[in-house]
Amino acid sequence: MSCLIPLLDVLLAERNAGREAVLATVVKVDGSAYRRPGARMLVSRFGRPEGTISGGCLEAEVARKAWWLTEAGPALRSYSTSEADEGSEEALSFGLGCNGKVHVLFERLPASGPCALITALLGVRDTQQPAAIATVIASSADGSHRLGDRLLLVSGQSAEGELLQSALAEQIRIDLQQTLVRGKSSRYLYPNGTGKIEVLMEYLPPVRRLVVFGAGHDAQPLVRMAKLLGWHVTIIDGRSHFARAERFPDADQVLVGDVEQPFAYRELVRGAAVAVMTHSLVQDAHWLQGVLHSEPCYVGQLGPRERTERLLAGIHEQQGELPGLACLHYPIGLDLGGDTPESVAMAMLAEIQAVLNGRNGGSLRFRSASIHDSDPVLIASETETEIAFAAEAYRRFAVQP
Amino acid sequence: MSCLIPLLDVLLAERNAGREAVLATVVKVDGSAYRRPGARMLVSRFGRPEGTISGGCLEAEVARKAWWLTEAGPALRSYSTSEADEGSEEALSFGLGCNGKVHVLFERLPASGPCALITALLGVRDTQQPAAIATVIASSADGSHRLGDRLLLVSGQSAEGELLQSALAEQIRIDLQQTLVRGKSSRYLYPNGTGKIEVLMEYLPPVRRLVVFGAGHDAQPLVRMAKLLGWHVTIIDGRSHFARAERFPDADQVLVGDVEQPFAYRELVRGAAVAVMTHSLVQDAHWLQGVLHSEPCYVGQLGPRERTERLLAGIHEQQGELPGLACLHYPIGLDLGGDTPESVAMAMLAEIQAVLNGRNGGSLRFRSASIHDSDPVLIASETETEIAFAAEAYRRFAVQP
Repeated sequence: MSCLIPLLDVLLAERNAGREAVLATVVKVDGSAYRRPGARMLVSRFGRPEGTISGGCLEAEVARKAWWLTEAGPALRSYSTSEADEGSEEALSFGLGCNGKVHVLFERLPASGPCALITALLGVRDTQQPAAIATVIASSADGSHRLGDRLLLVSGQSAEGELLQSALAEQIRIDLQQTLVRGKSSRYLYPNGTGKIEVLMEYLPPVRRLVVFGAGHDAQPLVRMAKLLGWHVTIIDGRSHFARAERFPDADQVLVGDVEQPFAYRELVRGAAVAVMTHSLVQDAHWLQGVLHSEPCYVGQLGPRERTERLLAGIHEQQGELPGLACLHYPIGLDLGGDTPESVAMAMLAEIQAVLNGRNGGSLRFRSASIHDSDPVLIASETETEIAFAAEAYRRFAVQP
Repeated sequence: MSCLIPLLDVLLAERNAGREAVLATVVKVDGSAYRRPGARMLVSRFGRPEGTISGGCLEAEVARKAWWLTEAGPALRSYSTSEADEGSEEALSFGLGCNGKVHVLFERLPASGPCALITALLGVRDTQQPAAIATVIASSADGSHRLGDRLLLVSGQSAEGELLQSALAEQIRIDLQQTLVRGKSSRYLYPNGTGKIEVLMEYLPPVRRLVVFGAGHDAQPLVRMAKLLGWHVTIIDGRSHFARAERFPDADQVLVGDVEQPFAYRELVRGAAVAVMTHSLVQDAHWLQGVLHSEPCYVGQLGPRERTERLLAGIHEQQGELPGLACLHYPIGLDLGGDTPESVAMAMLAEIQAVLNGRNGGSLRFRSASIHDSDPVLIASETETEIAFAAEAYRRFAVQP
């Protein structure tokens, strides 16, 4: 999602100027590919394309063809990254040697009026809550559902979109709720009259939030790097000469914390990744205590292991059981070596990224499973009939090269 | 070293303006501390202090006292970060709870004329070769050696500094050579008449160099992040529309590579970290082949494992044995999850950092050894006499609070 915010900004600018824009979305991947389903690229009529759908190999082609492909409505196009397909006229091949196939949905977003996807992205941005969105990516039942038809769920409540009129709407709404709960995208195959429709069920996570307690100068590269990753960053320190906005020009919020109120930031911390790094024993104890009671998704404590253990013993004595202990990581960071503020910042952010993605750090060369999370799975028994259906449905939707 | 370049720039600016500056250097650490021996901070007469010697706790104190402490020449001061010492008048305590002691050397660098340290830093910057520098940090033999006296070795050859006149000069020169070979700082204790002198033997590594083959837009966040870390970055691509300086405003060099000349970059690649990520099978094979014959210190290949293995098989067929295989990492990067160009860039840089520091990249919480590399060890049998000496010598040099 973090990379969808700049895209949303460009999209809103286009709408403000009364212009439509073409959105290209990876809706399915076979084999290897750099980006996963849900990766998006926006091609405005005059500006620079925004966002990426590959490692740089498909973007020029997509930007060139986007407007032409969508002249008659949404279109699906498949790109092969297989070496073997190179030069073949049937597949749009790029000879990248990845042996994958990337299926991209092209659609024009209107210059004005309702647009389910924009509603979803705005909802995620403004409420800082996740959303789920269902998009038709194939159908064997002509006419009843169009490619790109949608249903969306924002803040787990309101549903809207073209599919609301469908006989399947209620089932899709239930599956969208499930998608929100699982926090993971998937593909569904629904029966539809005598045929079937295939739906990409996307989980749109909120922007990752980082709350940093401690506004020393080692927090400065941390903020710069986290903003490069597209995270939302808040800095809090009890010392007003440290917690100054001009010291953190990139931060979203810089707050002077009241050390008498350890629980004042409960709402801010809930669901956020937190780094405690004031270098003051008194402040660290204070903030760590508040954080451990505020349901963060990750807490890292800077400093030697023994120091953190003394901090915890002190807090425990005052407070009894500490509910947030399971997500406390100390010493904070991945084991990268280096002691400059910049390298420590990278080690911290890399750990947060790994932990929240359920990864262990460590080199990818030692990972036995796939590099990526499993692709959105097809929720339905993939019988031969269904596979045949999918192939047929893709043929039907696909624009010939 | 990377953090010493901005410091060198400030220092040279002060000299150009005809002003001296005070340099504070961590020369020894007992117990835990954020930064290691060799960390430096420059306090100019009027400007903002540059560099850090702690996680932000000692800097204000150092900036305040730097000029006063050095009125009568170089001075050594010890800072306790132990909770227990808090409020004690004997130790300058900061109550950080780290249970460490940081020994800092303060010295004024001249406004003009020779200065061994400036020579060393300039040498490292301009030759991109490491240097080694010996600094007297304690002595029990009054008068014969002054605190801060130096001997330095640049490009493994020229030696200069105050210690060149010492009876120990030849032995120190040999030990500096050893320091260059080991690539690691240490402390030495030398007999000196009836007493001893203690010397910090520092290894000044060259700035880390990153060579990126592939100028796609996924290389853009990689460059921005590597520059944030202070690395020297070169981008090379055979496609002139990708390899354009305006696409990489932060890069040190952007080169259009000649795909007929895989070995053209041998000098550039030797000793550098390399990422191969053109997304083109032809270009990747080409550059990887050249890189593996050019003695890089790290090579990472982007893309699925199977793709890289096919690349290697092809190169092997043409070239026979591949000398650089031992330092080839594929798939490139740490296992952090995430597929945006920004998160992939972080995973790459984190792996390079870990590999070159001999770390494994997992969470620090699982590391059983110390977080930091072992501190510069005292090369000498630490008998009780010697420990007593050191204590006495520190007392002698130390400025009372």
